[in-house]
Amino acid sequence: MRTRFQQGLDDLRQRLLRMGGLAEQAVDRACQAYIERDLTRCRMVLENESLINLAEREIDEVAFDLLALQQPMAIDLRFILAVVKINADLERVGDQAVNIAERVMDMVELPPAELPVDIGRMATAVSAMVKRALESFIEGKAELAQAVLEMDNVVDRMRDEAFITLVRKMNDSPEVTRQALDALLVARNLERVADHATNIAEDVIFWVRGADVRHNVTEFVNPTEISERR
Amino acid sequence: MRTRFQQGLDDLRQRLLRMGGLAEQAVDRACQAYIERDLTRCRMVLENESLINLAEREIDEVAFDLLALQQPMAIDLRFILAVVKINADLERVGDQAVNIAERVMDMVELPPAELPVDIGRMATAVSAMVKRALESFIEGKAELAQAVLEMDNVVDRMRDEAFITLVRKMNDSPEVTRQALDALLVARNLERVADHATNIAEDVIFWVRGADVRHNVTEFVNPTEISERR
Repeated sequence: MRTRFQQGLDDLRQRLLRMGGLAEQAVDRACQAYIERDLTRCRMVLENESLINLAEREIDEVAFDLLALQQPMAIDLRFILAVVKINADLERVGDQAVNIAERVMDMVELPPAELPVDIGRMATAVSAMVKRALESFIEGKAELAQAVLEMDNVVDRMRDEAFITLVRKMNDSPEVTRQALDALLVARNLERVADHATNIAEDVIFWVRGADVRHNVTEFVNPTEISERR
Repeated sequence: MRTRFQQGLDDLRQRLLRMGGLAEQAVDRACQAYIERDLTRCRMVLENESLINLAEREIDEVAFDLLALQQPMAIDLRFILAVVKINADLERVGDQAVNIAERVMDMVELPPAELPVDIGRMATAVSAMVKRALESFIEGKAELAQAVLEMDNVVDRMRDEAFITLVRKMNDSPEVTRQALDALLVARNLERVADHATNIAEDVIFWVRGADVRHNVTEFVNPTEISERR
């Protein structure tokens, strides 16, 4: 039989997942808007920002109420703190989607330009990081979270490449400087989304391993994780 | 007589202030490095990043231990949650300082260029926001925090201006595109620092007013704040 507190934790987890879904959707839409020069999707991203902000506040309130309700066990406490931090990161993922949508709105006012950057490929990599980070949270698996940290290097490299090729483009074809700059800033926004996914993954590791290491609690920790713990 | 828990809260507050000091110092140094093209300051910023990261983890641990120690009262709980969130923002202020330092390191490899942007002025405004946000936290004053939110618009405008003038510069003088881009990205990093200061201010308001509104607790709330509550 589940206690009221356990139900509260489940509710918190579900809310955070919905929040994650909203943030993911916002990034996907913004990137799709970039690729298709689509103002409708831009507007959807801008409109949904307030939903994401509201969801953030509600999650904070639920976390607060759970902490106030009774003295949680160490592992639950660490879980709740991880949720509070992941929540803040997801809200900022939403902000990055808004930034991308705003860049796209600038971009579509300009003539299309052939640019040496594959934003779609970068978006795919970044989306995968966010998904994987949320998965690692759902399953409480530090090993999945660890994989996200490794993916971050790949995205950083893509951003560095985009930076170099787009600056060269600006030099060679000053007439498309602004388009190249929009693309460069979108690449940077995607890199930031990847950074937030990394933060989420770190919070999952903090929750799973920290709880285990410091408080000798073995829930949520499986043998593979124990073997790679450090 | 102060209880062990009260002492713990004071310790947490002190640690967060030290963390704030480190983050502020990193931004100031990075901006000074930009203005003086000074690699020594860049290296100091990079070296101090690990100190900031360590301080972040320690604060999370102290917050965790306080929550685990006993069931805090509503106002204390909200304070601790605010600290956890502010802590994450301060760590990212440190990251922005690192980004600026990295831009400066790129910049000093290039010939100096006369650029139509006053990074120093923007840095002053942003530093003031961070200082004010930390002050609002120390004093638990929502009105100070509110002032930070208003300052954010000023910084956003500066960033928009920098964007417009620097893009024009890139078009007119393609030979300094990369320098202009470095300046633009520094302006963007500063805007992000301002965003973090805004987040911190929002967390202070959430702590002070939220506790007051939802739980009928009047500590940390003074009459001027009551009159402007919404």
